[in-house]
Amino acid sequence: MNGRAAMARALLDTLRRHVGAAHVLTEGDLSAWELDWRKRWRGKALAVVRPGSTDEVAAVVRACAAHGTPIVPQGGNTGLVGAGVPDGSGTQVLLSLSRMNRVREIDRANLTLTAEAGCVLQTVQQAAEDAGLLFPLSLAAEGSCTVGGTLATNAGGTQVLRYGNARALCLGLEAVTANGDVWHGLAGLRKDNTGYDLRDLLIGSEGTLAILTAATLTLHPRPAATMTALAACASLEACVALLAAAQQQLGPGLTGFEVMNAFSLALVARHFPRLHQPLPNVPWTVLVELSDSEGEAHARGRFEALLADALEAGTIGDAAVAESVAQSRAMWHLRESIPLAQSEEGLNIKHDISLPVSRIPAFCAATGAALAARWPGVRLVNFGHLGDGNLHYNVQAPAAADAAAFLGSEEPAVNKLVFDAVVANGGSISAEHGIGELKRDELALRKDPTALAMMRAVKRALDPQGLLNPGRVL
Amino acid sequence: MNGRAAMARALLDTLRRHVGAAHVLTEGDLSAWELDWRKRWRGKALAVVRPGSTDEVAAVVRACAAHGTPIVPQGGNTGLVGAGVPDGSGTQVLLSLSRMNRVREIDRANLTLTAEAGCVLQTVQQAAEDAGLLFPLSLAAEGSCTVGGTLATNAGGTQVLRYGNARALCLGLEAVTANGDVWHGLAGLRKDNTGYDLRDLLIGSEGTLAILTAATLTLHPRPAATMTALAACASLEACVALLAAAQQQLGPGLTGFEVMNAFSLALVARHFPRLHQPLPNVPWTVLVELSDSEGEAHARGRFEALLADALEAGTIGDAAVAESVAQSRAMWHLRESIPLAQSEEGLNIKHDISLPVSRIPAFCAATGAALAARWPGVRLVNFGHLGDGNLHYNVQAPAAADAAAFLGSEEPAVNKLVFDAVVANGGSISAEHGIGELKRDELALRKDPTALAMMRAVKRALDPQGLLNPGRVL
Repeated sequence: MNGRAAMARALLDTLRRHVGAAHVLTEGDLSAWELDWRKRWRGKALAVVRPGSTDEVAAVVRACAAHGTPIVPQGGNTGLVGAGVPDGSGTQVLLSLSRMNRVREIDRANLTLTAEAGCVLQTVQQAAEDAGLLFPLSLAAEGSCTVGGTLATNAGGTQVLRYGNARALCLGLEAVTANGDVWHGLAGLRKDNTGYDLRDLLIGSEGTLAILTAATLTLHPRPAATMTALAACASLEACVALLAAAQQQLGPGLTGFEVMNAFSLALVARHFPRLHQPLPNVPWTVLVELSDSEGEAHARGRFEALLADALEAGTIGDAAVAESVAQSRAMWHLRESIPLAQSEEGLNIKHDISLPVSRIPAFCAATGAALAARWPGVRLVNFGHLGDGNLHYNVQAPAAADAAAFLGSEEPAVNKLVFDAVVANGGSISAEHGIGELKRDELALRKDPTALAMMRAVKRALDPQGLLNPGRVL
Repeated sequence: MNGRAAMARALLDTLRRHVGAAHVLTEGDLSAWELDWRKRWRGKALAVVRPGSTDEVAAVVRACAAHGTPIVPQGGNTGLVGAGVPDGSGTQVLLSLSRMNRVREIDRANLTLTAEAGCVLQTVQQAAEDAGLLFPLSLAAEGSCTVGGTLATNAGGTQVLRYGNARALCLGLEAVTANGDVWHGLAGLRKDNTGYDLRDLLIGSEGTLAILTAATLTLHPRPAATMTALAACASLEACVALLAAAQQQLGPGLTGFEVMNAFSLALVARHFPRLHQPLPNVPWTVLVELSDSEGEAHARGRFEALLADALEAGTIGDAAVAESVAQSRAMWHLRESIPLAQSEEGLNIKHDISLPVSRIPAFCAATGAALAARWPGVRLVNFGHLGDGNLHYNVQAPAAADAAAFLGSEEPAVNKLVFDAVVANGGSISAEHGIGELKRDELALRKDPTALAMMRAVKRALDPQGLLNPGRVL
């Protein structure tokens, strides 16, 4: 046994003492932790360690720090950018927060809920609902993603337009630093100007600056009624005009504004033909959602006024208002089926971008034309959260082409064309998915150099040994 | 001439070359920059330097960094904690952003406005209004405080309940780092997960991590109608119950919820007897504001329903609804006259605290009793933004006592009693005013030690020479 192996064994013994032998996994099939759910990254951990408390997390971090052993924190393992699985070296500890899954407290009068990092998002949503309140963060992975993961990645989802992303829904954090100290920063305060904003610094840092162990989240009153509609627009310009009208007429009642281009819904029609499409074959379909604090009748009146005005102004050509919860769900289901339909259709090149809303029509026109000129027949699956300026702008190979071959040879050039246009328009190359491993090199190329230098300085300051999720983000 | 003086002269020559001799002030009455507006801190600057552009700010910072000369950035000089004036040494450069006062751009479709750091808040409000939109940040100093200053201190004000504080209204920053590099981080993006959240790290850092030169701010649709009322509550518990009802019934339409105890309005009655008090002599007066996206009639209906329900439930004993804009202004004027009435009454000990809303009644009962037990006859001016959990909890000497003598001997003990109770209840000792010089020692004593260590590490990382606003915050 060489020195390195002896060191590793000593560390594992220490970890077993801290968290119990049953929670230090080194054998058997560990792919639940070592393989990301898109099956794009497969690593090999020194061990999967599952602490059951904040003090145990701190003890694990201190032991790893003493051994110079890197740590990869993981929540529900539903990330999209390869930030939550170990590398292939077999030298990293995979620290799973999944046993820390309790809702610690609900404070109804303060509209806050405190949950541990491994608590599943749906559990938080349900706990809020049981208290007669709303936790609005909602995204496809909510049945398995965790509080810690959604905060570490600053997750977005479908309610950002009204309630903000994960960052906007967090008031306080508990976290373990790179040297194993615990920051007791849980707080249900809406105002606190006592020093630097460490909370927002750690949120979105993808486990590279500290390990989140718990958070105090903001709850909202439940709306009394929700209305959903699909509307047909002839152009993206018309979608932007409808958005402005909806913001003006519905104010903060506007809680959803999603767009889908014709091709994205055509893919849904092809692969999920049983899903009813109320407005078939229109250039752009908008999903609008209103949440109303008064009630059904009032909500319907406002909603129908918005749509009638838009019809009269020619902003929309047609509209279908959901008449039941089932119809509303079916409309959202259409929207949410686009990524699945894309998978059925075959490989594609995904971009999770954001732009100022005002620039989206011109960006799409110019970028679509540039892509078509260079790759005739290329198809765009263009959909997303227009209200947030966030598009999932995905490029599918021409129908006649071999998708795998197209991706193999053209992906870098496609990415360059799209990202160049995004940056030229003041946009972001990662709106809600993060950087992780997937976009680290792209970030180094494209981020403002002063910002990069500041980020690196912060990383060195808070994790001088570079042991927290190394190689991710920076 | 000694070496130090020669060095200083060389620096001043360099600064004059960069910004023009007219904008490097070293003589005459500089108290507009050297004395804070509360007249609590008077410093002496090496020079007041007034750059006219971001590049000039960067040049000034590089020159100062090369000479090891500290820089104190200043906006409108309306801060409350002594963070914006130089110390008395005559060795610090006071960097005034006041010449950088332009609104650079309004993007109506994107609901954003980009302004320079020295732009006065009221100018931003007016520019938004001229575009048919709303910039909701509003506070007493809005006629002279600046964009840079409100962001550097993460200012709060009267609209936080609905729109958030300054941090929540900023999407992007332009800033000059401690070594004189420019971070071009202006962006009108509502979603951007490309690395660490430097924006929120700099916001609220009181000029100690970088110098803000411009910001992209979020605008909102203007409400169609606003309603204001005063309501009488028998207790703070009743105020909290009214808040919960208002949040449930008005949803995001609730834009103001201020409380005032009987003594604070009694002071207003004594010193401003001509101000009409619609609900005299009640234990607690609540100011409620509704902003409605539909119109006057609809707003009135909702508002009166809320108040009628609360009357029936016994939550409030009486209410007065403003019937005109003038009456609404008069109600806000009552609230805003409290600090002035306090000044007229004499010296007092101010606390800008926040607590979980749920704990406020018990905190006030216990702390009020403890103060009264130790200092019989002590009077509490207790008012503030209950909806945000933020109280201005001010302690006035007993009526018979000499206020100056009372403060001179008792202020530390009063502060200790109040802050101990705040911390024990999970609160903050500075909700919206910041730390600056005033509360730096208190922060060092009371902040979580891990948080303090992280803040110090971040400060060292981003300002290794310690030249940016030294001695403030940390």
